Amino acid sequence: MQIAWIGTGIMGAPMARRLLRAGHQVTAFNRTRARAQALAADGAAVADSPAQAARAAEVVFTMVPDTPDVEQVVDQIAPVLKQGTLVIDMSTIAPASARRLAQRVAEKKADFLDAPVSGGEPGAIEGTLTIMVGGEREAFERARPLLDQLGQRITYMGGAGSGQMTKLVNQIAVAVNLEAAVEAMLLATRGGLDPALVLEAIGAGAAGSWQLNNLGPKIIARDYRPGFLIKLLRKDLRLLNEAARETTTPLPALSLVTALLEAASAQGHDADGTQALAAVLAAMAGAR
Amino acid sequence: MQIAWIGTGIMGAPMARRLLRAGHQVTAFNRTRARAQALAADGAAVADSPAQAARAAEVVFTMVPDTPDVEQVVDQIAPVLKQGTLVIDMSTIAPASARRLAQRVAEKKADFLDAPVSGGEPGAIEGTLTIMVGGEREAFERARPLLDQLGQRITYMGGAGSGQMTKLVNQIAVAVNLEAAVEAMLLATRGGLDPALVLEAIGAGAAGSWQLNNLGPKIIARDYRPGFLIKLLRKDLRLLNEAARETTTPLPALSLVTALLEAASAQGHDADGTQALAAVLAAMAGAR
Repeated sequence: MQIAWIGTGIMGAPMARRLLRAGHQVTAFNRTRARAQALAADGAAVADSPAQAARAAEVVFTMVPDTPDVEQVVDQIAPVLKQGTLVIDMSTIAPASARRLAQRVAEKKADFLDAPVSGGEPGAIEGTLTIMVGGEREAFERARPLLDQLGQRITYMGGAGSGQMTKLVNQIAVAVNLEAAVEAMLLATRGGLDPALVLEAIGAGAAGSWQLNNLGPKIIARDYRPGFLIKLLRKDLRLLNEAARETTTPLPALSLVTALLEAASAQGHDADGTQALAAVLAAMAGAR
Repeated sequence: MQIAWIGTGIMGAPMARRLLRAGHQVTAFNRTRARAQALAADGAAVADSPAQAARAAEVVFTMVPDTPDVEQVVDQIAPVLKQGTLVIDMSTIAPASARRLAQRVAEKKADFLDAPVSGGEPGAIEGTLTIMVGGEREAFERARPLLDQLGQRITYMGGAGSGQMTKLVNQIAVAVNLEAAVEAMLLATRGGLDPALVLEAIGAGAAGSWQLNNLGPKIIARDYRPGFLIKLLRKDLRLLNEAARETTTPLPALSLVTALLEAASAQGHDADGTQALAAVLAAMAGAR
């Protein structure tokens, strides 16, 4: 299949590579061209603009940082979209924006899916991402064979924007469970316990979570290498708080964690992994 | 082995029953005698007082609601404790109190273990509890064959009180992950998604937790039958906040969830399962 891939960063590059290796023809575009160029070794063509990449494509993927980035790409490719072209945005953006983009693309008789992912760089490399998809079901069915190359748990959530809304719901649990893990490890330490032994004792029971079991050991080791960046989680929480306001949904714990992540940023942890939230609590507790 | 079992409530009765079925001789005591009497069918003797139950026992188990209850039992059995008697408290109480009780029992040349559990009534019935043990290691080794009848993941955490401290750490994650699940399900609903489909989409990834996966479906169904009572989680959080104060440990999310659980109590949910916390958020959101 003839595919355009816009955005070849930490997530986008390994995802595009999986499609290349599955035998698809991929034309890549990235603002920093060198990053797209790296895919040429796997057989990708490299384009000078999103429109050039999209011109001959049956499917256009976008995997870029934020809402305005996706909007800009759609602005640029709109003139070359043909009837039936499938635009699949795998970035995490505002659900309301995804709905507007779907309308915009529909005006060209093309189809738009919002298909954000969870699972990070390892999931992108191994093709084990969780993918939450909103849009027309018929478009989802057409996209399915390609999405199967990228992810493992792929769920059709409903109309335009519902993939993004699901991703935001996902990020509530990610952020609040992360804070739970950070507080648990802090009391374990200050309560005089061996925190690694605590993880072993409680990780499989009612206290268990992906965040505790995967980030707990890094919190203990003060290993703040990413993983998933504080900066990007802050972006997701901005979208989340917007969606909460639009739907008048009180999310008190999420609001609290939002504030603590702002502190993490203020303390210089934007480029660290999300487990660096532990440093904020440690600083509050007077620890170095 | 000759065993005394003090406290045959929702947890204690099935635990004592497992020891009876493993061939031990159990003398049971419960303040409401009828509850202890129910174990007679399984071969238990029923005592009129904790001291009477403990008199001939090699091992005395206590499984009662709160710190003062355990202290009262230890007051009552202290006169009949013999050198080498093993007192195993499986209630959830303050770590500082567990340390004092261990000293008290040691004066009789007997041994005290704090061995609180996680896993609820199903875990008690099936013998799959998580058990976190503090006290002398030699006493733990003697207790081990009995604990193996009651639980699956049994961890020796260190000196007196460290089992209780581990349980409190466990309850941080239980309470805060519960709130995460409640907020996630609320945004799913108000964001126009099918919340059951959301659980399916996100439950196995970075958002996953025991609380989300086990209580999410009950939250969706507004099924507030216990499980684990709001009232008992509030008690655990009182102990937690005491331990946090004693160790000057800031636990901001735990503090927030403590307040929300007080609201749950104020709104009449004390005898409901912990997932009734969802009703507090729904009321905040103006839903009936």
